[in-house]
Amino acid sequence: MVRLLESKVVYVLGSDGYIGWPLVRRLRAEGAHVLRIDNGVKREWAEVLGVEPLATHKRVSHLNINLADDPTQRLYRVFEDCPPDAIVHLAEQPSAALSMRGRNWARITQANNVLGTLNVAFAMAHTKRPVHLIKLGTMGEYGTPRIPIREGWLDVAVDGYTDRIPFPKRPGSFYHASKVHDSTNLEFCCRNWGFRVTDLNQGVVWGLDTPECGFDDDEARTTFWYDEYFGTVLNRFVAQVASGFSPTVYGKGTQRRGFIHLQDSIECITLAIQNPPAEGEFRVANQLSEIKSILDLAALSRLRPAHIENPRKEDYDHLYEVTHEVMPGYGFTPSRLLGEAEFDHMVEAVSEVANLAWHSEAIIRVPETLWEQPK
Amino acid sequence: MVRLLESKVVYVLGSDGYIGWPLVRRLRAEGAHVLRIDNGVKREWAEVLGVEPLATHKRVSHLNINLADDPTQRLYRVFEDCPPDAIVHLAEQPSAALSMRGRNWARITQANNVLGTLNVAFAMAHTKRPVHLIKLGTMGEYGTPRIPIREGWLDVAVDGYTDRIPFPKRPGSFYHASKVHDSTNLEFCCRNWGFRVTDLNQGVVWGLDTPECGFDDDEARTTFWYDEYFGTVLNRFVAQVASGFSPTVYGKGTQRRGFIHLQDSIECITLAIQNPPAEGEFRVANQLSEIKSILDLAALSRLRPAHIENPRKEDYDHLYEVTHEVMPGYGFTPSRLLGEAEFDHMVEAVSEVANLAWHSEAIIRVPETLWEQPK
Repeated sequence: MVRLLESKVVYVLGSDGYIGWPLVRRLRAEGAHVLRIDNGVKREWAEVLGVEPLATHKRVSHLNINLADDPTQRLYRVFEDCPPDAIVHLAEQPSAALSMRGRNWARITQANNVLGTLNVAFAMAHTKRPVHLIKLGTMGEYGTPRIPIREGWLDVAVDGYTDRIPFPKRPGSFYHASKVHDSTNLEFCCRNWGFRVTDLNQGVVWGLDTPECGFDDDEARTTFWYDEYFGTVLNRFVAQVASGFSPTVYGKGTQRRGFIHLQDSIECITLAIQNPPAEGEFRVANQLSEIKSILDLAALSRLRPAHIENPRKEDYDHLYEVTHEVMPGYGFTPSRLLGEAEFDHMVEAVSEVANLAWHSEAIIRVPETLWEQPK
Repeated sequence: MVRLLESKVVYVLGSDGYIGWPLVRRLRAEGAHVLRIDNGVKREWAEVLGVEPLATHKRVSHLNINLADDPTQRLYRVFEDCPPDAIVHLAEQPSAALSMRGRNWARITQANNVLGTLNVAFAMAHTKRPVHLIKLGTMGEYGTPRIPIREGWLDVAVDGYTDRIPFPKRPGSFYHASKVHDSTNLEFCCRNWGFRVTDLNQGVVWGLDTPECGFDDDEARTTFWYDEYFGTVLNRFVAQVASGFSPTVYGKGTQRRGFIHLQDSIECITLAIQNPPAEGEFRVANQLSEIKSILDLAALSRLRPAHIENPRKEDYDHLYEVTHEVMPGYGFTPSRLLGEAEFDHMVEAVSEVANLAWHSEAIIRVPETLWEQPK
């Protein structure tokens, strides 16, 4: 195997997470020196919320820095001691539902995400090295516009003038908005400070294993969240089916979204690291493998879905033509697509590892949110 | 005189400020009940920075709430006790230069502005009343695009599909970015919660008096900032000329911007209050009276300007065709335009009130910023 990142220093911010942990193992397999930074706050939030993963790996150590509240500039010193070639920033509050739970969670989301990214940006500017920042965004930043979704930019003509403008964003939660804010800040940093940034507007991630992180390996497996805040939709359906429930579909289920398997998400991030953008370039990729409706996902269970009242405000009949050519341009082809075999594999694996009876109530719970009306 | 806001309850957030204070007096003259909210933090920042206004009014009391850090939800209780009809939100860190001074000031700027606005949004959602929020933004959110700047929205056609999209933003500082973040959050609130929001993308404000706030009246006058962080460009030129200096022009001076007199800014805000948008409407107005270059402003002094190295990164030769029809649609016509008579009036008034000798060093000082390179 060619080790494509031999001796590269890569920081993974949020290295304890669902994507972060298997990314760490993949990058190490590619020969990179990987600095793990995680302050464990997601596990604290989970405790406050009374949710927990179905399974996780044995605890390993991470450099404990709160990126969003770093008054002594510990991050600057880390950059000085161990200058990075690339940084993958996954250290954000990742749940739209949680960001809509109320004032405090909206605040936590935007403070953590926006101020954390701002701190990373200043540390990068401080180093004066050509560091490449890979920032995880979300397809949800775009919302569901009436025009096809381009890849980050849009060519427009107005009164005979033309420009390439940032593709319009109409986020659907304070979480999605926080990612828009990050993109706004970082696009400015590229123009102003010559940053090299890859902004990955990722589809919904699903799956429980990668080649480096088998789910039956309790040293290696990634954390599998199934709950109403941190569980992504397919993973949640898997946990429901494994517990004997029907998949709970929010509303009509005709909402269409981009999806990508965990292994392919990590493949794309690795490709991004291998192919840094030019100085000053704000490169945006729509990181997804396929577009499906929520009903398409539920159908994989071969059970009749339980339609429940949608706690979110979503359009059901919307255009969703998405350009996603940047990652294929670097050689990405999806290795794992949604299908019954993958679904069955996940149900089986989850059933073997976790005692699902402990979790059955939470497995069908609907998040408390204020999309409809604040309390 | 017809009192157009008789018995309306209006909150002015940032009521101690350059615009806030004369706005309070104008709204009271219109018959409104005005609740003044200001935590005095701008004066604290000024002390830390070693800058001070040339003149201000005698201290009056304001309700002291830190909007951005309000863990006990004091704002909710204020909304319950005294439900507002309209809120004018001016309580933001207003200086681009200050936001670029370093990591801590960038953080203060974005935390204060974004989290403060988020708190106001939740308090509004909590009331379940048709409150109208008037939010001060800035023309600088748009940057200097290669297309004409529309008023908040842009009609586009892509592959035969059409949509009305938020006009693209490419802010030029972390301050300008914070205002973009606010707009992103509030546009979401309009779609999601049916908020009525007026987003005023204001040009650079200049001037020292309004009908309600004569500069020679030490009870009434507004605070006049001339320093390198809080002084806007024309006011700064006035202070420089009054002290015997030439106006200090950043770079070529061909940068073109929108300008509006303080009195007309307040007129527009008052018109916005009188004409609330529909439920769910995110109304954007480009609030300016005229477009001028920095050299045009310097020429009002009839002195040869001192061109100094630009601490900002700005385009000098850019398109700047700006639509500004929303406010004229509500009856706005500028009452005071840039001219030699206004300039001379300001120089004279400032010379009479302030002991300029005390301030001469600061009057020509260039801000410390990291636009070029972080330290």
